[in-house]
Amino acid sequence: MNITATKPGTIWGVGLGPGDPDLMSVRAHRLLGQARHVAYFRKKGRPGHARCIVEGLLPPDVREIAMEYPVTTEIPLTDPRYNALLSAFYADCAAQLRALSQAGQEVLVLAEGDPFFYGSFMHLYDRLRDAVPVRVVPAITGMSAAWAATGQPITWGDDVMATLMGTLPEDDLVDRMCRADALVVMKIGRNIDKIRRALRRAGRFDAAWLVEYAAMPNQTVQKLSEAEGRVTPYFSIVIVHGQGRRP
Amino acid sequence: MNITATKPGTIWGVGLGPGDPDLMSVRAHRLLGQARHVAYFRKKGRPGHARCIVEGLLPPDVREIAMEYPVTTEIPLTDPRYNALLSAFYADCAAQLRALSQAGQEVLVLAEGDPFFYGSFMHLYDRLRDAVPVRVVPAITGMSAAWAATGQPITWGDDVMATLMGTLPEDDLVDRMCRADALVVMKIGRNIDKIRRALRRAGRFDAAWLVEYAAMPNQTVQKLSEAEGRVTPYFSIVIVHGQGRRP
Repeated sequence: MNITATKPGTIWGVGLGPGDPDLMSVRAHRLLGQARHVAYFRKKGRPGHARCIVEGLLPPDVREIAMEYPVTTEIPLTDPRYNALLSAFYADCAAQLRALSQAGQEVLVLAEGDPFFYGSFMHLYDRLRDAVPVRVVPAITGMSAAWAATGQPITWGDDVMATLMGTLPEDDLVDRMCRADALVVMKIGRNIDKIRRALRRAGRFDAAWLVEYAAMPNQTVQKLSEAEGRVTPYFSIVIVHGQGRRP
Repeated sequence: MNITATKPGTIWGVGLGPGDPDLMSVRAHRLLGQARHVAYFRKKGRPGHARCIVEGLLPPDVREIAMEYPVTTEIPLTDPRYNALLSAFYADCAAQLRALSQAGQEVLVLAEGDPFFYGSFMHLYDRLRDAVPVRVVPAITGMSAAWAATGQPITWGDDVMATLMGTLPEDDLVDRMCRADALVVMKIGRNIDKIRRALRRAGRFDAAWLVEYAAMPNQTVQKLSEAEGRVTPYFSIVIVHGQGRRP
């Protein structure tokens, strides 16, 4: 046994929750207050949403690693260059974190929402988990904040809940919308018109709510039918509540 | 305007998360530390799971309201007496909380998981929301803790996730299991054999994980195929991970 070997530092995927710092977990809050290195994704030239959530919570001498996406919406998802660029980017980021871990440093990777639920952190996790210690702190999802914002429970009794991405083809959306009681639709943005059509075809449009920026200072909540023509931001979620059995 | 009228106290539905006190939100933690009245459901003769989660976090002089279920599994769900008994019980509990609110008292109702996601608090919420101020603190769901425990992300890219109750008829389970990428099955207990059959029919059995007591001290994680004959407790969740697009 080589007792002079450096013990590798843990890479933490720290879920920050939906956006309100008051809704992060006690564990996440404590880790942030003791952080030596924090890493986070952001678009070029932007502060980064995850970084904004933790503003004021980090020690003054923390080291920051801003991982800047090489591409976001400039190249369509279907272009093979998209995958190649992103894959190389994630490999670079993972290599940087792995080196820090191997030098004995602990790093917190800031993750919006829950790290294992449609999260960017997962791309690092897959590339790190066999090489260095990685741990994940689960968190409140954006969808929990969205249904809380509507003031109505999302699921009762035996309700089936489907979580759908607005990027799916319209027919797939309709099929799933017909076979679930409660619906959560994410990745809205430029897919909003397709989502409206799918909800109408599934007979769910009149019951749908649109929540923008759930648990953030600029949160809005309205019936989707009253948001006609509205430009919906990335942080939007469409909710249809289940109406299941209740005594 | 009658300035001598008592301002009604807020009834809080405080989500406690999956069970580890370290995973409750900063807001929930702060509310608990300042609580004057806490109310929680429990089975007769049991301490109550929600109450156990907050052990050591409440002020010493807090007043406790234990709301004891009149019935759990003694009467089948299909018996009309079940609904009548539970409905009267929830009405009684709501009346007690409403009286406290009208006397100006704030009350925290302790809710396991997220209060609006298949939660018992919803039955009080429906009976109180038009009468007194009610607020909800969202929380980490048991399912987030369960997929974190498996060490694998639950959803990638455009994955469709279905949340299913083990109480559903087998054919309904099969139908939904075939039309989703990621699966979360809750309310396992005595439905485990039906769930196994449904997963087999849907071709998802070999990929299924069984997580018991996620985020609790007695947590277990195993492939469902390796848990043959195991008696599964109420706090069990079956997980099938999505395998969607990733760069």
